[in-house]
Amino acid sequence: MKTGCKFGTHRVISPLNVLPQTATKINNDMEIYDNEILIDVMSLNIDSASFTQIEEVCGGDVEKIKKMIMEIVEEKGKMQNPVTGSGGMLIGKVSKIGDKLKGKIDLKEGDKLATLVSLSLTPLKIDTIIDIKKDIDRVDIKGKAILFESGIYSVLPNDMEETLALAALDVAGAPAQARKLVKKDDYVVVLGANGKSGLLCCYEAMKKVGDNGLVVGLVRNEKGRVALEKTGFCHKVVIADAQEPITVLNELMKVSGNKEYDVAINVVNVPNTEMSTILPVKDDGIVYFFSMATSFTKAALGAEGVGKDVNMIIGNGYTRGHAKVTIEDVRESKVIREIFENMYV
Amino acid sequence: MKTGCKFGTHRVISPLNVLPQTATKINNDMEIYDNEILIDVMSLNIDSASFTQIEEVCGGDVEKIKKMIMEIVEEKGKMQNPVTGSGGMLIGKVSKIGDKLKGKIDLKEGDKLATLVSLSLTPLKIDTIIDIKKDIDRVDIKGKAILFESGIYSVLPNDMEETLALAALDVAGAPAQARKLVKKDDYVVVLGANGKSGLLCCYEAMKKVGDNGLVVGLVRNEKGRVALEKTGFCHKVVIADAQEPITVLNELMKVSGNKEYDVAINVVNVPNTEMSTILPVKDDGIVYFFSMATSFTKAALGAEGVGKDVNMIIGNGYTRGHAKVTIEDVRESKVIREIFENMYV
Repeated sequence: MKTGCKFGTHRVISPLNVLPQTATKINNDMEIYDNEILIDVMSLNIDSASFTQIEEVCGGDVEKIKKMIMEIVEEKGKMQNPVTGSGGMLIGKVSKIGDKLKGKIDLKEGDKLATLVSLSLTPLKIDTIIDIKKDIDRVDIKGKAILFESGIYSVLPNDMEETLALAALDVAGAPAQARKLVKKDDYVVVLGANGKSGLLCCYEAMKKVGDNGLVVGLVRNEKGRVALEKTGFCHKVVIADAQEPITVLNELMKVSGNKEYDVAINVVNVPNTEMSTILPVKDDGIVYFFSMATSFTKAALGAEGVGKDVNMIIGNGYTRGHAKVTIEDVRESKVIREIFENMYV
Repeated sequence: MKTGCKFGTHRVISPLNVLPQTATKINNDMEIYDNEILIDVMSLNIDSASFTQIEEVCGGDVEKIKKMIMEIVEEKGKMQNPVTGSGGMLIGKVSKIGDKLKGKIDLKEGDKLATLVSLSLTPLKIDTIIDIKKDIDRVDIKGKAILFESGIYSVLPNDMEETLALAALDVAGAPAQARKLVKKDDYVVVLGANGKSGLLCCYEAMKKVGDNGLVVGLVRNEKGRVALEKTGFCHKVVIADAQEPITVLNELMKVSGNKEYDVAINVVNVPNTEMSTILPVKDDGIVYFFSMATSFTKAALGAEGVGKDVNMIIGNGYTRGHAKVTIEDVRESKVIREIFENMYV
């Protein structure tokens, strides 16, 4: 067996010199390199934007959707929607682990896993499409896929429903980063505290700050306040519009006794919330942007404009052990499990 | 005297609840609050995009340009171009320091300074425009301005030309951050090493890494290589297109003996260079984006896609002491001074 590039560039067919995600065509030959993992695929969880686009083009006709998915994968060697560019993730069983990885990773043949890298970069071959579940953007198939050495994944736990695990794994980066960034005695604010990532971040922050710390959750309205307070995951809940930095700052200073915060975590899903995240943080404090609505320039120029010497971090969807942290949280906290089951299962 | 908000929101007239930069009109009454600084303004260095727009609208007519600038400042209370939204910086002398700041900052009345916060948020009143220097976007005036408590500035050094100091101060954030982030023995790569920020970052990195470290400068072409090698600011210079991540990775691994880098600093002024910055860095290493062409989502999703557990930092234009570090570099290094004088003075 040959050894491939850990990022999978050895499978890029065209154009050359790009990563598999950018490639228009990759090699989906299922003979694995010795640093690849072969997966027997059970289901594709198609990215919502992608599935909606395919469904519309096909007028909702299941046979047409099947045909279109088969064609995309035959053409590209991966399930990447040519219009949206997005992929999704897959669930399957480990069929074979390359010699160079065997024993070095926490996977064995037969394990049931979810890939946490996008289908838009994953070599895939579909034998047959068994079923299409339109309500949950899911495609059950018989087929195979390849995970590269750099590809991330999570073994699926036996003690919870698959849909629950997937809902949690979808935001796995945030709580794991919160666990890393928050220290004992810290004052922490989570903007967008009532969403899926927000709840997990508050939960992690609460465990870290201890008796002298403070965790404040910022929510948009009274409904959010009631829901968040019921969890007990914050010392204080503040209602404010995250797009109004001065209001946010004033409200946060009220509940902290005018002490600036050590860490601000932004998981708000609307734009223009950069300054609300930056202003409450002390010099040398941490501003963690996990929201995909974050503007790089608004953050960079905004902090300079107010002379804030804060460390602004781009939320990386991946950090070592992130899946484990997140599944642990769901397992540990009845409150999280109940909320997630109600919302996403 | 009253105490104002340190970010200057007490001077916002409309709309309410925004920061001075976002405001369409701010109060430019020159009676200062006790946490403000009054400046006798000598020159405005208008942002290049703004000056070009004004010049075009006025057909290059100096009297029309004067009138337009006067009107903008009368209307808004600050010199913020209504089309580009941008400002610039100013040079002046400290006229009065509010009681609450006196003795607590490294400024005294009479000091000559450059403000490092944008004119787009600085209360300004122009008595007369003395001269317009179209070739350097400069407007000499008699007038006054206010610096807020959070406003950043640099006292202008006596031992170098103003234009040289301003050219260096323009990118002050980058070298100061490089000094903070780079440690002894680190392997460091600077992408865009041959530009103004790049040279300063290489210079700082070289001083920090010591004998067992490595500083590699990435440049686009042979001309850049020759120029950068002549400075002696890098151990190795690599020529590659920063938009081709795999090529960049391979070339960087060659010169490092296949060791991944501890720190990558991106000061490239073109888009789509995120992956070239992320791929060469080891897990737990630092990826520092100082380029305004950085895409937040490309960085966040890109690192996840290749399973890179790297710390990605948004380049903050401000960090404590940043102006001092940069002026020190220009003073210390004849090479930097010569290059900057040739390019920007």
